[in-house]
Amino acid sequence: MRRTITGFSNPTVKFLRSLRDKKHRRREGRFLAEGLRLLTDARETGHLPEMLVMASGRDDHPLLAALEAAVAAAGGEIVETTEDILAKITGKENPQAVAGVFAEFDTSLATVDRNAAPIWLVAQAMRDPGNLGTMLRTGDAIGAGGLILIDDCADPFSVEAVRASMGAIFTQRLVQARWDEFLPWLRGGEKGGEKRGEGQLVAASLRDPTDYRQATYRAPCFILVGNESRGLPAEYEAECDLRVTIPMLGRADSLNAAIAGAVLGYEALAHLRES
Amino acid sequence: MRRTITGFSNPTVKFLRSLRDKKHRRREGRFLAEGLRLLTDARETGHLPEMLVMASGRDDHPLLAALEAAVAAAGGEIVETTEDILAKITGKENPQAVAGVFAEFDTSLATVDRNAAPIWLVAQAMRDPGNLGTMLRTGDAIGAGGLILIDDCADPFSVEAVRASMGAIFTQRLVQARWDEFLPWLRGGEKGGEKRGEGQLVAASLRDPTDYRQATYRAPCFILVGNESRGLPAEYEAECDLRVTIPMLGRADSLNAAIAGAVLGYEALAHLRES
Repeated sequence: MRRTITGFSNPTVKFLRSLRDKKHRRREGRFLAEGLRLLTDARETGHLPEMLVMASGRDDHPLLAALEAAVAAAGGEIVETTEDILAKITGKENPQAVAGVFAEFDTSLATVDRNAAPIWLVAQAMRDPGNLGTMLRTGDAIGAGGLILIDDCADPFSVEAVRASMGAIFTQRLVQARWDEFLPWLRGGEKGGEKRGEGQLVAASLRDPTDYRQATYRAPCFILVGNESRGLPAEYEAECDLRVTIPMLGRADSLNAAIAGAVLGYEALAHLRES
Repeated sequence: MRRTITGFSNPTVKFLRSLRDKKHRRREGRFLAEGLRLLTDARETGHLPEMLVMASGRDDHPLLAALEAAVAAAGGEIVETTEDILAKITGKENPQAVAGVFAEFDTSLATVDRNAAPIWLVAQAMRDPGNLGTMLRTGDAIGAGGLILIDDCADPFSVEAVRASMGAIFTQRLVQARWDEFLPWLRGGEKGGEKRGEGQLVAASLRDPTDYRQATYRAPCFILVGNESRGLPAEYEAECDLRVTIPMLGRADSLNAAIAGAVLGYEALAHLRES
């Protein structure tokens, strides 16, 4: 089914615009992703939008045709609209020619098989959606299993986080949990008679730390980074199995959180590939 | 001299707000930095604001008193205003209690002594001010000499870039140059009979690359990252002395530009410290 929408006051446009707001995303259980490349990544990893929104007057592209065909075949909705309306929906002056509405994923810890990947990224109270999306993107690159969001983080389904993830929102497992759920899960040895496996919790720290290049990383390795301004709470740091130090040669005493996660993530990857 | 300003239409407020706009910054040769910590870093590295703007009703803090005294002693202006006006000036809902107006630096290549540091970060056509500020912050951490901006980059003096730099805007040398100035400068052996020194230009690449962990880095090492969406132009990549590959184990074929710079920067640092 293909519809054409040209009015800003159309209910579908209102619905789509409302998805830029966290409250509405939660209520609808839906989020927006934009861009042909990102939506193609989504399709190729088995995620089709329930609704595909395309700008009229866009360039024809075989990947867009493939996307449209797949969405139609799955019974999804196809909406054609003006560039202006698409810009309004995505909040971007030069919008991508296409956007899609996706159902939010199940982000419970129960979805995680920790042995599915050697590395997991864990962010605590990360407030910047750009950092959060960048962590997802880095996780994809280092072959991480996913990103575990602890405590009150920015919404991973925000347009900014999805954009910064460059499609990794569809390839990385995304988990949301409180610290007091995460820690028992990490440490819990068994569930229903089945061994859950081990997990090494690692953080950058100034507390009795090991140089991050000399440390011993063990899979599955959970790399924990803290809030952008406050860092990790001391009691979370105390729970870590490994505290490593990253050289800070200048005046500043910390890195951007997504940078710290990437530096540690790549280091752990190199060690785990050698071992 | 200390003045109190309570009206939004005051010319000083208008001047301060105008500094959020690149065109006005260029015309005035001034930029805004905010936050007690950042301004204290600036002071401790010899940068005093020409004008210090403080929120009335702020908490007293010895560092703020020190800052105010230093600005006054240097003949700078002290302005006290409301929190609302300060929020308007910095464009932030919860503004820091203090902001300062600084003169822009000389960002010409002529200011660079390449042998002053083992590593320099170089960004080409980097469009995101947050990435740019993050590069400055990372440069401070790895003991880089500075950040060299090639071609049309985001404005390093924007509020967003200064904020993301976390003070490194004051500790890192900042350079702006076109590629066709930078390359002859990098390669130019002599100037006025004086040897300028060597420089190794390094980039992440898929073109006959070496694993980034196995590569040989040489100081001064110039780590070049490209535009967020297009990457580096092929002809720039071809000019590099060393092309390295960073593992990309997932679906994506690139990292966030600031992440790539940090991963390479830390790797080069580790090698150069061992050698």
